[in-house]
Amino acid sequence: MVGAGQLARMTHQAAISLGLSLRVLAESAGDGGALVTPLVEIGAPDDAEAVERFAKGCDVVTFDHEHVPQPIIAGLERSGIAVRPGASALHFAQDKRAMRQRLGELGLPVPAWSDDPAALPRPYVAKAVTGGYDGRGVWFVDEGDPLPDIDLIVEERVSIVHELAIQVARTPSGKTRTWPVVETVQRDGICVQVVAPAPRLSPSFANSAEQLAITIATELDVVGVLTVELFEAPTGLVINELAMRPHNSGHWSIEGSATSQFEQHLRAILDWGLGDTRPRAPVSVMVNLLGGESTDLAASLPTALAEVPEASIHLYGKQARPGRKLGHVTVLGDDVAGVRDRAQRAVDILRGDPS
Amino acid sequence: MVGAGQLARMTHQAAISLGLSLRVLAESAGDGGALVTPLVEIGAPDDAEAVERFAKGCDVVTFDHEHVPQPIIAGLERSGIAVRPGASALHFAQDKRAMRQRLGELGLPVPAWSDDPAALPRPYVAKAVTGGYDGRGVWFVDEGDPLPDIDLIVEERVSIVHELAIQVARTPSGKTRTWPVVETVQRDGICVQVVAPAPRLSPSFANSAEQLAITIATELDVVGVLTVELFEAPTGLVINELAMRPHNSGHWSIEGSATSQFEQHLRAILDWGLGDTRPRAPVSVMVNLLGGESTDLAASLPTALAEVPEASIHLYGKQARPGRKLGHVTVLGDDVAGVRDRAQRAVDILRGDPS
Repeated sequence: MVGAGQLARMTHQAAISLGLSLRVLAESAGDGGALVTPLVEIGAPDDAEAVERFAKGCDVVTFDHEHVPQPIIAGLERSGIAVRPGASALHFAQDKRAMRQRLGELGLPVPAWSDDPAALPRPYVAKAVTGGYDGRGVWFVDEGDPLPDIDLIVEERVSIVHELAIQVARTPSGKTRTWPVVETVQRDGICVQVVAPAPRLSPSFANSAEQLAITIATELDVVGVLTVELFEAPTGLVINELAMRPHNSGHWSIEGSATSQFEQHLRAILDWGLGDTRPRAPVSVMVNLLGGESTDLAASLPTALAEVPEASIHLYGKQARPGRKLGHVTVLGDDVAGVRDRAQRAVDILRGDPS
Repeated sequence: MVGAGQLARMTHQAAISLGLSLRVLAESAGDGGALVTPLVEIGAPDDAEAVERFAKGCDVVTFDHEHVPQPIIAGLERSGIAVRPGASALHFAQDKRAMRQRLGELGLPVPAWSDDPAALPRPYVAKAVTGGYDGRGVWFVDEGDPLPDIDLIVEERVSIVHELAIQVARTPSGKTRTWPVVETVQRDGICVQVVAPAPRLSPSFANSAEQLAITIATELDVVGVLTVELFEAPTGLVINELAMRPHNSGHWSIEGSATSQFEQHLRAILDWGLGDTRPRAPVSVMVNLLGGESTDLAASLPTALAEVPEASIHLYGKQARPGRKLGHVTVLGDDVAGVRDRAQRAVDILRGDPS
């Protein structure tokens, strides 16, 4: 796996069960994924030589993030290395212009968009074509606001009823399996909470979302886990973003589904049978742990464990900093409000927030 | 953790979530637990110098097995190292004579037993005082059978209705939490299957088992997870064996309980809050994967994953050998017979048994 953040960390947990040896290419030995795995090489994801040297020791190469440049990925494929997802699929997760064009060609629901900022009425959303994530690279642009001087596209502001996400895993031989659609709660462009399955979604929208995910995975030839972030608009579903890897919106699946997104990603890229994705409980809620002003996990963890004994706490091995994703908490149960309260309570304690 | 077998391997998976750094003392770099953890030292568990050097780098020392000699453990404690469970408790998991004596003094139900083979009528069971596990060190002795020439005790053969196990975690400050009693199925002294909760147990026996486990953990001052193997006899429960660590009979808890035995053991030895132990499903069945004559996991794993998509498969990173514990499979569901069939089916495929 190229990259050694929290996704590599949780992928290693799944790899252990399957008897696999996960190798990681870490930017630094202190990366969360490097701290817990024995097979670590150090190198930057945009250093072609480092990535190639690393990849030669692997049966299959996959990714913790989208920051490996296209030419490097394509170069690996030309050397005969199994890269999953492959360069042509990853292109659509790395380049928002290409993604919007391709999804439009497929007749799938995307917001009105343009390369030309003058072509859309303001207010609109401007998005960096490459490199954005977690709210970075996205601007809400009103009358008179300046535009950043980078390669960007502009999109209509969709009227949002709820934000949703749907994940699907796909094997090289084309088998697919979806998880239930989830509802995501975003703050400042960062996902703060996920409720699985989405509690306020009509069955027909849920079905549409699943079909959308399968269509995208198949048409874009995605291998591994594909995450589709969706807007539920009054008129129907609109595709927001794609990620071709395990994703924050799927962390609930570690406890909440018979097969976690991390195990499924490994099974998919190895062309093994895909696992059952049924939920383990009527409701799973995942709340992200973002660093607060006075977060001290060494002090707060024992209290959180004691106060919310039903919480599954996942820490990412990172130093606390305000706003940084330090971990997440999942709680399973029967009713959305109660489960959400308990997960949030554990996160509040971990952050060191006054109760 | 002293020892780096499958328990260390699964403990590492739990340690990752809690943000802990699990260090292991492995006999060999190829041990299952050493293969997947970055902080490995090599040394034998009965090499006092190796164990002491290892222990000095740890905040808390715990064990993957019972094979560290008492004097070494006591020596660590004298050096001020936190050893959990401690030497005085571990003594009762290492020495069957001491265990039987102590449990008898506490008035707890143990089989009739003696140091003197002539004191009990045959047939009886002879047990090595130290070093036995997985059926080794246990002999069913009939009229005329020779006795092995080692330090042993003899016990009456209990009339067994079912075999059971109960686990409890206990913190240094004395908090305890039990899991539901499970039924175990043994073959040749090795646990082959566990059904959780025990499906054919009266509530009063279940309650007795929980009270027994809490009493033993408290009276013996156990810290961490204690496993009590029990016989359900026509007249009541009888204590068979003790283990002061995560145990094969608790592997179901990884998926089947809100808190796994591995996470709970870490929480207990760190004196953190203990987690919720309620089951995630009406039935969890764990089936051990023992090597067969033609087991080839690289060939059989993809088939098992595809044929039994609801199975949670855990492999231990070992070379296949007939009779060797190579992994286990857990399935959750609603009815014992169906769930058991599916878990067994996955194991049969993994072993390479004809279907």
